[in-house]
Amino acid sequence: MYRTHTCGELNISNANTKVVLSGWIQRSRDLGGMTFIDLRDRYGITQLAFNMDTNSALCEQARKLGREFVIQVEGTVAERHSKNLKIPTGEIEIIVDKIIILNKSEIPPFTIEEDTDGGEEIRMKYRYLDLRRTPMLNALKLRHKMAQETRKYLSNEEFMEVETPVLIKSTPEGARDFVVPSRMNPGEFYALPQSPQTFKQLLMVGGYDRYFQIVKCFRDEDLRADRQPEFTQIDCEMAFVEQEDVLNTFEGLIKHMFRVVMNVELEGPFPRMSYDEAMSKYGNDKPDIRFGMKIRDLSDVAKGKGFVVFDNSEFVGGINANGCAEYSRKQLDELTKFVTKPQVGAKGLVWIKYNEDGTFKSTIDKFFTEEDFKLWAAKFNAKPGDLILILAGAKAQTLSALGTLRLEMGSLLNLLDKKVFAPLWVVDFPLLEWDENAKRFFAMHHPFTSPKPEDIEKLDSNPGDVRANAYDMVINGVEVGGGSIRIHDQKLQQKMFKTLGFSDEDAEAQFGFLMNAFKYGAPPHGGIAFGFDRLVSLFAGLDSIRDVIAFPKNNNGRDIMIDSPSKVAKEALDELNLELKKKEK
Amino acid sequence: MYRTHTCGELNISNANTKVVLSGWIQRSRDLGGMTFIDLRDRYGITQLAFNMDTNSALCEQARKLGREFVIQVEGTVAERHSKNLKIPTGEIEIIVDKIIILNKSEIPPFTIEEDTDGGEEIRMKYRYLDLRRTPMLNALKLRHKMAQETRKYLSNEEFMEVETPVLIKSTPEGARDFVVPSRMNPGEFYALPQSPQTFKQLLMVGGYDRYFQIVKCFRDEDLRADRQPEFTQIDCEMAFVEQEDVLNTFEGLIKHMFRVVMNVELEGPFPRMSYDEAMSKYGNDKPDIRFGMKIRDLSDVAKGKGFVVFDNSEFVGGINANGCAEYSRKQLDELTKFVTKPQVGAKGLVWIKYNEDGTFKSTIDKFFTEEDFKLWAAKFNAKPGDLILILAGAKAQTLSALGTLRLEMGSLLNLLDKKVFAPLWVVDFPLLEWDENAKRFFAMHHPFTSPKPEDIEKLDSNPGDVRANAYDMVINGVEVGGGSIRIHDQKLQQKMFKTLGFSDEDAEAQFGFLMNAFKYGAPPHGGIAFGFDRLVSLFAGLDSIRDVIAFPKNNNGRDIMIDSPSKVAKEALDELNLELKKKEK
Repeated sequence: MYRTHTCGELNISNANTKVVLSGWIQRSRDLGGMTFIDLRDRYGITQLAFNMDTNSALCEQARKLGREFVIQVEGTVAERHSKNLKIPTGEIEIIVDKIIILNKSEIPPFTIEEDTDGGEEIRMKYRYLDLRRTPMLNALKLRHKMAQETRKYLSNEEFMEVETPVLIKSTPEGARDFVVPSRMNPGEFYALPQSPQTFKQLLMVGGYDRYFQIVKCFRDEDLRADRQPEFTQIDCEMAFVEQEDVLNTFEGLIKHMFRVVMNVELEGPFPRMSYDEAMSKYGNDKPDIRFGMKIRDLSDVAKGKGFVVFDNSEFVGGINANGCAEYSRKQLDELTKFVTKPQVGAKGLVWIKYNEDGTFKSTIDKFFTEEDFKLWAAKFNAKPGDLILILAGAKAQTLSALGTLRLEMGSLLNLLDKKVFAPLWVVDFPLLEWDENAKRFFAMHHPFTSPKPEDIEKLDSNPGDVRANAYDMVINGVEVGGGSIRIHDQKLQQKMFKTLGFSDEDAEAQFGFLMNAFKYGAPPHGGIAFGFDRLVSLFAGLDSIRDVIAFPKNNNGRDIMIDSPSKVAKEALDELNLELKKKEK
Repeated sequence: MYRTHTCGELNISNANTKVVLSGWIQRSRDLGGMTFIDLRDRYGITQLAFNMDTNSALCEQARKLGREFVIQVEGTVAERHSKNLKIPTGEIEIIVDKIIILNKSEIPPFTIEEDTDGGEEIRMKYRYLDLRRTPMLNALKLRHKMAQETRKYLSNEEFMEVETPVLIKSTPEGARDFVVPSRMNPGEFYALPQSPQTFKQLLMVGGYDRYFQIVKCFRDEDLRADRQPEFTQIDCEMAFVEQEDVLNTFEGLIKHMFRVVMNVELEGPFPRMSYDEAMSKYGNDKPDIRFGMKIRDLSDVAKGKGFVVFDNSEFVGGINANGCAEYSRKQLDELTKFVTKPQVGAKGLVWIKYNEDGTFKSTIDKFFTEEDFKLWAAKFNAKPGDLILILAGAKAQTLSALGTLRLEMGSLLNLLDKKVFAPLWVVDFPLLEWDENAKRFFAMHHPFTSPKPEDIEKLDSNPGDVRANAYDMVINGVEVGGGSIRIHDQKLQQKMFKTLGFSDEDAEAQFGFLMNAFKYGAPPHGGIAFGFDRLVSLFAGLDSIRDVIAFPKNNNGRDIMIDSPSKVAKEALDELNLELKKKEK
């Protein structure tokens, strides 16, 4: 063993003890008579002291050690003269007798400190150095703890962790599947799972009753918006349950996690909000309910008054920003610029200042009366001093733009407190989504989601109106998990495939084994999957999932540390019965 | 919720309680006046009772229910007349008021009982039904528990579970790598890891100090023996340790597992045996030390006496089978047949019976005297009544054949008790193995294994004699884990690559990132990986790892349930810039 103690555990009670420590040199300070070195390991930092008067040779040796050298020291614990009460080891230092250099270090390409000077590219190339920084270490410690607590909680609730295969079946539908050529079966391919969906359903058919797995999933797609080609899910399934049972069970999991990991007590049941309400009041299906500022529909009062922009719009709606009536022209111009960005997509912004003196000032004064504005203000419960922001256009797009504007205002008004956690369930999702390009319905979640029993009859007459037994858990505007009650009836599943435009042959080829399984006594079942990376980053207060993954890939799906993906030798492809296509000229 | 209780929890204390249960029909018995149904779920079996006299309609309904139907029943808990004290619910039954059929079942293709009538092929095709059988359920429960306990133990020992990537770098050396074409980077490939070896070493460079992961690994090779293309490892690494620290730590893990999972206390430190001793005394590097019957070298006493077979052999050795002197001609012929099978590879078998009366009888009586045999017997500590079995030939092959014969005799003599667990460490492995075909050395473990410091100087002069800081944990003749202290010095690692015949360019292309990492303060480190599937099957007393994997593949790497691997559409290959090679005619 290269040490008797770690760099995080010695304190005043160890004074006068002979110890051996090993670690990295965080920094050293040469004060002439004395040299101090901060020795770092995963557990903390301990100060090493060298005295020019009592041991000049050793002190000279210490001065030559560079940052990030790995050393082992023998010495005696002593009380410090100037104490640092911010760290557990801050009352002591080690009077060193002997130094052994275990490994040298070149000067790192960026500083290994809390806040580094390295850009993301270089930090990813030298990830093993970036991982030494406290924020990365803390994020991965948090991740470890969250994984442990998830397993502990679910195991106590009788969930069994079962490993499902990584090499599964490639399907024509799986346009975003990674495929894996098989050497033993040349010309044939496995696929990597986008989720263990069918396997967990088969486990329910197999009577496993409660399953979970913290599991890697894979998706080969453009990595816009903070995604990774491989990501981790907390994947769960239960038999003999209805939607309410699933929601209660996993509300329990998330409350447990907040309690033991964050010391945050989430009181009472999580609010439930229908998809329709989320879309109409928040402009998206993952509402951030840390703050109000709900969207109001003004169509009935704003249209038909001669303002052609409103009159020609399907929908007019707005939000009320408390206390923003004093916004300057410049601030309002910036908001206009914001909403007219292509990503937001509004044509323009109408604002109405509800002045402190009770009067109104607006961009559309000449089309509407003070009385009109009073009526509108009442719809928002607006008070003098508020600012009403209005968008108009096609309904879906305008609601979406208002949702984005609402979040922007929330951010500007500091309403997005990272220490506040506002969870809710979004429920009653539509079962199907119409795709205008493909001219057919797609499953909004996946083809195994069960319709609400009372809506099943509409599957033929009005498929777009059928609601699903599907649910998302949303926290602070982040969709952390989602799931559904599944279809367990073979006939209904067949009908569903038909509605989704599968031929019988396609359905059989892709999901025959599942349909077959349903013939032998499939229990009612349902489940949920949480995005573990996302959940950890939410808990950590970090914006990117890359910061909670030890070895992430960049936005092009590349691991720039190991330089992967990369070419493979022709011989290897030969063995797989494959060749690269010639580039067309 | 479809139930108030599970089928495993009701007992006499619940008498007269109204309950709702859901589950599968295990079997039903129609006794004329009464019909009984065993209702099964993951937690147990509860008897349902239907009385023709009191509710004939319901009883008629119950009689029509087939095996494996999924039903929900409402009823009242009542004390049974004829109790079954073998199961926890055996004192009660449910007097049923109402049956709801949740799902029907066709007649399963094999009987879902403890011992099924289904062959392995059909059981794998209908794996979801096979999983309903108690032995499968128990194996997966055990697996879950072992995973949980591994994580608990290692977390308490300050190990952090860190997820390493599944999509890594393909290397020319990785002939058995699965490769994964990247859609975003056409013409380039990821590889699936055979182990997280380099990543865990990078975590040590990153200061993580103690890492573990229960992780899927992949190998694309013929699945002779009992292998799977994807398998699970308990992968571990520690910094600032020497071999002794690693052995002690993981002895602790395995002892903990035996204690809490099997209720078996493994006393004292595990024995350590050198590779040389294992090879010379047991004929292989994973000795089963549940029994003795060690191999003895007879070369010095058996050669030079005129028996040409011995005289022309590099090596003569044998084992002593206690109490087998009475073996019949037929039994001895069978042993001869066994050792001359191609897999064992001996040319023939020489036997010497040490008769109860102190005389000897042997196949080679005419070449050796009674005095010779006495001397040989003394080498084995043989007693009258024993049977000495001797093989001769090239040393390595003969030792190996003797090792196999020893295990066969152990099996015949019932010395391989599955309830006895005999762990040991095999240590001091050679660092390198000479490959006669390739005319070069290969790393016996992998190229990151450190040589013993005292042997480093032999790396140039006599590489085959260099021993490694490598170790295997062996239990009952099964290698359950193996690992090594790693090289942490960049120069030594470079020398190692050179010894293994890597050009500088190849070493750089494949492991440049690791060599680079070693420049920035790599600590001394080492680790181990346990084959989790193997460990579970050992604990479960099962011979095949397929029996402890929920959805295994067959010997051709096929999942016959989902019919994978399979063809993919040309369009999918186009996107990957790949095409299947035309078959040559």
